[in-house]
Amino acid sequence: MDEVLAANEEYASAFGDKANLALPPSRHFAILTCMDARLDPAKYAGLSEGDAHVIRNAGGRASDDAIRSLIISYKFLGTKEWFVIHHTDCGMQLFDNEIASDLLSQSLKTAQFDGEWHDTNDSTGSDEGKYINFLAFKDLEKSVIEDVTRIRNHPLVPKEIPIYGYIFDVKAGKLIGVVKSI
Amino acid sequence: MDEVLAANEEYASAFGDKANLALPPSRHFAILTCMDARLDPAKYAGLSEGDAHVIRNAGGRASDDAIRSLIISYKFLGTKEWFVIHHTDCGMQLFDNEIASDLLSQSLKTAQFDGEWHDTNDSTGSDEGKYINFLAFKDLEKSVIEDVTRIRNHPLVPKEIPIYGYIFDVKAGKLIGVVKSI
Repeated sequence: MDEVLAANEEYASAFGDKANLALPPSRHFAILTCMDARLDPAKYAGLSEGDAHVIRNAGGRASDDAIRSLIISYKFLGTKEWFVIHHTDCGMQLFDNEIASDLLSQSLKTAQFDGEWHDTNDSTGSDEGKYINFLAFKDLEKSVIEDVTRIRNHPLVPKEIPIYGYIFDVKAGKLIGVVKSI
Repeated sequence: MDEVLAANEEYASAFGDKANLALPPSRHFAILTCMDARLDPAKYAGLSEGDAHVIRNAGGRASDDAIRSLIISYKFLGTKEWFVIHHTDCGMQLFDNEIASDLLSQSLKTAQFDGEWHDTNDSTGSDEGKYINFLAFKDLEKSVIEDVTRIRNHPLVPKEIPIYGYIFDVKAGKLIGVVKSI
């Protein structure tokens, strides 16, 4: 927390003109991408403050909540193009609902991975994980196509909004095109 | 799309050492914040690629999907501290579920705001908005406290994880503390 606050102090001290930015994104687009620490959408897509909405969750999945955010993004704040960007070496490819709910039942500690997952089995876990769909996936390209398709087919998404599906390559920093829905 | 790809080309051409970053966040924390275009969490919190998970949605709300992401963040990828960061002048304070579902029923075009919302009423909208909780809010501090509390009380969130609630001031670039749950 102290490190974050010190960094913020420095950022705020040179905030300048950014105080005058408007609420609606000036470049009228939104990116849905993964929470992965190696991804910095502002850097990999060339965004400055004020440019675009950025929605992030585990996997960059088109969850109901991501769709809620996208609907708000266009309906109230006027975005006109959307990107769905998953990435190589994603943690979501390393487990599934069964593994997740099993590990969470065993303990609430961080699990260890050495090719497979291990837990402490200290019986302080919770069965609540059985009620969560973690939205993990095996096939990266397929997950991008599925998510673009789910957004495209949503009854509150206008046909006029182009949706672009990409994969970010964490070894090269590059965006690789997968699908366009225009 | 062309602008994004051109910016990405430049980023990838100087990617260097970032190719070797590990999947788990090296600074072991996660930030849940708003999708707002004016917010760049990497800049306002001092993050480099590889440091921390960043989860973003409309409002930075502790939705089920944000909690799914946080659980994955600690259980599989070892984060140990979480930040919930809302911000001043948030679009989520300008409407509520009734306004959203009304506007979406009237048309699927972007609504106009001049103190209140106006729509084109062209009857090409959809009633599906009635089935979505948009998670808008009126009171900014209260929304931070509610979201920290919801995460704290979730049965899959370990008591040992400190959760910090902040407001980002979009006029000053500064983080303002609201609540700590430790």
